[in-house]
Amino acid sequence: MRATFMYGAGDVRVEEVADPTIVEPTDAIVRVTMACVCGSDLHPYHSMSAGPTGSPMGHEFIGVVEEVGGAVSNLKPGDLVISPFAYSDNTCPFCREGFHTACPHGGFYGADGVGGAQAERVRVPQASGTLVTIPADVDEKFLPSLLTLSDVYLTGYHAAHMGRVTPGKSVTVIGDGAVGLSAVLAAKQLGADRIVLMGRHSDRTDLGRAFGATDVVPERGADGVAKVLELTGGDGTHVVLEAVGHMPAYEQAYGVVRSGGVISRVGVPQYEKAPVGFGSLFGRNITLNGGPAPVRAYIEAAIPQVLGGEIDPGRVFDAETSLDDVAEAYRLMDSREALKVIVRP
Amino acid sequence: MRATFMYGAGDVRVEEVADPTIVEPTDAIVRVTMACVCGSDLHPYHSMSAGPTGSPMGHEFIGVVEEVGGAVSNLKPGDLVISPFAYSDNTCPFCREGFHTACPHGGFYGADGVGGAQAERVRVPQASGTLVTIPADVDEKFLPSLLTLSDVYLTGYHAAHMGRVTPGKSVTVIGDGAVGLSAVLAAKQLGADRIVLMGRHSDRTDLGRAFGATDVVPERGADGVAKVLELTGGDGTHVVLEAVGHMPAYEQAYGVVRSGGVISRVGVPQYEKAPVGFGSLFGRNITLNGGPAPVRAYIEAAIPQVLGGEIDPGRVFDAETSLDDVAEAYRLMDSREALKVIVRP
Repeated sequence: MRATFMYGAGDVRVEEVADPTIVEPTDAIVRVTMACVCGSDLHPYHSMSAGPTGSPMGHEFIGVVEEVGGAVSNLKPGDLVISPFAYSDNTCPFCREGFHTACPHGGFYGADGVGGAQAERVRVPQASGTLVTIPADVDEKFLPSLLTLSDVYLTGYHAAHMGRVTPGKSVTVIGDGAVGLSAVLAAKQLGADRIVLMGRHSDRTDLGRAFGATDVVPERGADGVAKVLELTGGDGTHVVLEAVGHMPAYEQAYGVVRSGGVISRVGVPQYEKAPVGFGSLFGRNITLNGGPAPVRAYIEAAIPQVLGGEIDPGRVFDAETSLDDVAEAYRLMDSREALKVIVRP
Repeated sequence: MRATFMYGAGDVRVEEVADPTIVEPTDAIVRVTMACVCGSDLHPYHSMSAGPTGSPMGHEFIGVVEEVGGAVSNLKPGDLVISPFAYSDNTCPFCREGFHTACPHGGFYGADGVGGAQAERVRVPQASGTLVTIPADVDEKFLPSLLTLSDVYLTGYHAAHMGRVTPGKSVTVIGDGAVGLSAVLAAKQLGADRIVLMGRHSDRTDLGRAFGATDVVPERGADGVAKVLELTGGDGTHVVLEAVGHMPAYEQAYGVVRSGGVISRVGVPQYEKAPVGFGSLFGRNITLNGGPAPVRAYIEAAIPQVLGGEIDPGRVFDAETSLDDVAEAYRLMDSREALKVIVRP
């Protein structure tokens, strides 16, 4: 089969490799029908050292079950499924607490002998706990939105959930990438009263407005903070959803959060240490949280929202390539010519 | 009247000063009948630069209202009252959200022209919102516990509340000072299943056991972390209440917190930057919060718990001095000869 590998910064290749096979009785083999490129795939695309071994890429997909291991009873060949970007058993105490990304039997695509999803087929460990079926006759028009439940929309949702967005709360979203826009949509779903989107790409912030942003602040740094404070009577917003991951975004976050409020991060931090003392978080009782989204915890509730037309998170996709042209998908996202790109094997 | 001032590290003096008077119509004058020394008073006792001007000291007290300003309608001379360590209007949006320490009309004793409470009398700004009355004929035996509602017990309670301690949760408390022990008692009140107290002073950890600690870990640093992980099957506890404020305590906190758990801090951070990235908090979806306790939010519910004998947080007091001997109270706490000292004007 064909699968995507990254050999170094900017070097994405499609190669012919052996089809995956069942290794554990808890595995399933899924034929990928729709995958995509994630903002997080761009980190190695920028910085990966070149080497002789390629890293398997991709972790978001919809597909058809082809084969299941002997311990998988709730899935059968032919089932149409969505996979969360992390696999998990969905039964351990961590999963039951809603933190599937901490499952001791869990892991990630493209690591530990599991392939990537920008491929024709993928082996899914812990298939019973991981894969979620959707109707085999689902209208094609819903597929992009269903694909976002693999990662991007539910990562935005995780931010809003951890940020404890409830009706009447005011929210700032930092970042107008696909995760930031998803966070806007999720905050709107959870009843946020006012949603300030900090972003400066007007085509993206326009989609943010369509998703529910009430205000757009293109300014950054101190100017951006001043603008959000001005919009909120000097107090800031109850919740800040930080979907960037760089230190300036963190600094903006504690600059615009209201005393007693929450900064919820889903942008993977590109720093380890940050201000958390009296002058930044402690003195004003600010909560800091977030992390890798336990998508599996939210996916079953989101599917009917998509199929019922309540949410349309698939609008973050604005381009599509074949698997053979996956390198072009990376290039389009890296150059910001596209927000998020579907890849069809 | 006599009042306590600190002139530099180790230099605590009682001086004769003018009685406070009503300045704003929202003020009350309270005759202090019972005050105490706070762990936070020991910070300047260690490090304050000597100078010609003394800082007024003390922020925890019970007393009798002597006079009220024209805008104070819910208090009258003769009322027995407890004061939170911070004053607040109790009506603004921040107070209504339960974050009285962020009240824009609020402030702290010993600053901005308001005296300290280790004194015969004190002016209380925003008296209607701040002071909480208790029965004038209250049994004397309850007074120490009622005094802890001014700060120490409800600071421990704030930690547990922000840490979202609920029945069945496991909790680690870091620090066996009066706030740490109060956090143990509060965690027990909120239904914690298992409470691991990290502290190495056995007289204090014994009181911690009486307050509800199920395990005591005297080891610190990596050894302490290993011990707590061993006690919890390698997973750590759902909640960590950090009542120290130094970096090693913070490092212990993220070492022993369970994935998806909460680190709630009430020890005033003696650092500004700390690890919060993928390797410490983000990768495991850890929440970090806490701050100065909005005692006023909790005090009314706690009074009947004290008067009903349900909680006895006053057991943290193990010594008493007169106001004239307040310097001795500081010395006893600084030398760890006493855990917490009552000061009677």
